[in-house]
Amino acid sequence: MIRHTVVFRLKHPEGSDAELAFMEAARVLAAIPGVQAFEQLRQVSPKNDFRFGFSMEFADADAYRAYDLHPDHVAFVRERWLPEVEAFMEIDYAPL
Amino acid sequence: MIRHTVVFRLKHPEGSDAELAFMEAARVLAAIPGVQAFEQLRQVSPKNDFRFGFSMEFADADAYRAYDLHPDHVAFVRERWLPEVEAFMEIDYAPL
Repeated sequence: MIRHTVVFRLKHPEGSDAELAFMEAARVLAAIPGVQAFEQLRQVSPKNDFRFGFSMEFADADAYRAYDLHPDHVAFVRERWLPEVEAFMEIDYAPL
Repeated sequence: MIRHTVVFRLKHPEGSDAELAFMEAARVLAAIPGVQAFEQLRQVSPKNDFRFGFSMEFADADAYRAYDLHPDHVAFVRERWLPEVEAFMEIDYAPL
């Protein structure tokens, strides 16, 4: 199992319609084959400057790679992620 | 629900006995009242320099605060975390 997470901050004002529209658009990721346990989360620690997170799990590295190359993921990154995200960090976990 | 996560890198060489001993010592955290879904994880993304992660969940902010103040947590931070961890970042999630 690989848990892919990304913590991020949007360019949009907090609570804006644009913020909501971004999160709604991101739900397309949950439907990509191989994606399990998809979560949209609020980042609540005052110890970093990120505001949201996505978390999803893959059975193995092949499933993760297929997601990464999937046209719906590629389109989301190009059309929404790159223009609307101000800062982000990817953290991926596997069982110890 | 609050999911408290910390991603980190140890001062110890990878695969060393000291690394293993640190991870074993950290299991004390799982037994602190209020801690749910405790996980020790390997960080596997090449896009950051951290190597491990802990993840745990709390029912609410009060349970999280009680953990933070619990003597076993305070002792672990003083005796193991501060001397043995080279770098870390805390990320906490709540449902959107």
